[in-house]
Amino acid sequence: MIDQRKLPQEETYVKCRSYECVAEAIEKMVIRGAPAIGVAAAFGLALGFQNLKTAEKCDEAFSKIFLRLSETRPTARNLFWALERMKQVFEENRHLSFSNLKKRLVDEAAAIEHEDIEANRKIGFHGKDLIADGDSILTHCNAGALATAGFGTALGVIRAAVQEGKKIKVYVDETRPFLQGARLTCWELEKEKIPTVLITDNMAGHLMQKGEITLVITGADRIAGNGDTANKIGTYPLSVLANEHSLQFYVAAPFSTVDLSLSEGAQIPIEERDPDEVRTIRDLCLTLPEVEVRNPAFDVTPARLISAIITEKGIARPAFEDSLAQLASERMSEKEG
Amino acid sequence: MIDQRKLPQEETYVKCRSYECVAEAIEKMVIRGAPAIGVAAAFGLALGFQNLKTAEKCDEAFSKIFLRLSETRPTARNLFWALERMKQVFEENRHLSFSNLKKRLVDEAAAIEHEDIEANRKIGFHGKDLIADGDSILTHCNAGALATAGFGTALGVIRAAVQEGKKIKVYVDETRPFLQGARLTCWELEKEKIPTVLITDNMAGHLMQKGEITLVITGADRIAGNGDTANKIGTYPLSVLANEHSLQFYVAAPFSTVDLSLSEGAQIPIEERDPDEVRTIRDLCLTLPEVEVRNPAFDVTPARLISAIITEKGIARPAFEDSLAQLASERMSEKEG
Repeated sequence: MIDQRKLPQEETYVKCRSYECVAEAIEKMVIRGAPAIGVAAAFGLALGFQNLKTAEKCDEAFSKIFLRLSETRPTARNLFWALERMKQVFEENRHLSFSNLKKRLVDEAAAIEHEDIEANRKIGFHGKDLIADGDSILTHCNAGALATAGFGTALGVIRAAVQEGKKIKVYVDETRPFLQGARLTCWELEKEKIPTVLITDNMAGHLMQKGEITLVITGADRIAGNGDTANKIGTYPLSVLANEHSLQFYVAAPFSTVDLSLSEGAQIPIEERDPDEVRTIRDLCLTLPEVEVRNPAFDVTPARLISAIITEKGIARPAFEDSLAQLASERMSEKEG
Repeated sequence: MIDQRKLPQEETYVKCRSYECVAEAIEKMVIRGAPAIGVAAAFGLALGFQNLKTAEKCDEAFSKIFLRLSETRPTARNLFWALERMKQVFEENRHLSFSNLKKRLVDEAAAIEHEDIEANRKIGFHGKDLIADGDSILTHCNAGALATAGFGTALGVIRAAVQEGKKIKVYVDETRPFLQGARLTCWELEKEKIPTVLITDNMAGHLMQKGEITLVITGADRIAGNGDTANKIGTYPLSVLANEHSLQFYVAAPFSTVDLSLSEGAQIPIEERDPDEVRTIRDLCLTLPEVEVRNPAFDVTPARLISAIITEKGIARPAFEDSLAQLASERMSEKEG
């Protein structure tokens, strides 16, 4: 996997030969983005099982690998969704020979990866109609190809609209502390020559006030049954500002991000990360080395501030309890040719 | 003057022997903070005049120095206020001998400095009653001793409340792109052992949602007659968030920040600074070196989102047209012993 911590300055790859390596890559954000974490965890589980020498106690071994990977990061729904799906496949195919079971798990991880790319393309297909020619779109963090198996969620919608010939400008929040916007989203957009303007996270309000931003679209890490959405820290303030300026605020995510077991966003666990991510950038100390820091990695945008949730199954509108439940009961939309 | 760009890692001083050096120090933010800029510009003007060899054409020379200093930064009211005051003193004392006129200008700059410290102490005196024991206060940028001649405006209020024995915790926005919060405010607060928590600018919404912030207090760079307030970029979003969470949002500033010649904030010129301030931190490039950037240094908080404006003359409450005009007609409050 590409080492996202080093982009855009270096394009280097990390090769994982153990599930522990995958777990650490997720923890340290070598790979990040809810859908990408899900795919990585699925492959990590397949890899860990692949590395087992003997079928003896392989149930225990599977559980141990499952547990290790599930403890890497708490917020993204897709991590747990992908691991649970792998577990179900494991249990359903327990009767297979050891080598066939190994192969079955690798195939399932590959299917999760393939389906995620498909889902992103359908998210783009559904979402592009919400974008008008001439829009100036604000996005936060990176909800692009790097955050997924490919194409992207929020950036997938933008890509699909651009592919249709719409002229779009994208304002990119740098997204402190990890700078996913400055480092990853700018890198993706510039590669495709989509007009990009980088801003610091505190500039969106001013640009909305000046009429320079016409809508907001972000990804999601977990969506509760009522539509409350956890996403990268700083998303919630953007939803409040969008509301203040009567701008549409869209969330784009595969349905694997939706967690119908949670009735509301307050139940979503919010990861608190290492204070040094705030105090330093690379080895540069930005402040006093010992100052106390808070570093919540996500916040929750209440459903009432979300205009629509764009999924591969279609677009959910308020009331989300109903629209998400309705989409959950449907197969993936067949609309795209 | 202390080189604020190098804090908190280095405490080095810049000695200016020419007005051009002072002008560049203001432009490059060696010194920043509206009141501090005003004091520096006044001394720069006195210094430039002091350096004149001959009284011949000294009116022209004065105008040239005045113009150079007035073109350093466009937003802070105090810069123009201080220069205008110096100009008035110059014109009123034009009859003095050349050396006495020089001395008179130095004395006036010193008076501006002295009065600013006094004003800050009175701001603290008036403002401290707005702070309750146990408050968790969010502040943005640096409105402390470094931003003024001493004591500070927003931090002056906090200092005065702490001196009264109130237990207070201060959340400090790091304040991208220049990191005045991370570098300067943390440094000031830690020196006085006031409990300090550093956050990135996009975390305030989450902490308000969790009830961890109880009020917001910032400084100001220019206040229009109706109370609309220009302050460091990122202030306006905080006012929207404070309103969303029913928190008090206070502005603390000397009355020299108030510009009664402007009826509303839309008339305040907003400085757009070098894009490399966003792209890089020191020599570290955070993004693609050629990416387009917006870098407005200030935004305008509308009066309707401001609970009170704390000045040395007293506290202005809405409607600010009336309360600011009322305070303008008063001499400095005599209340403090």
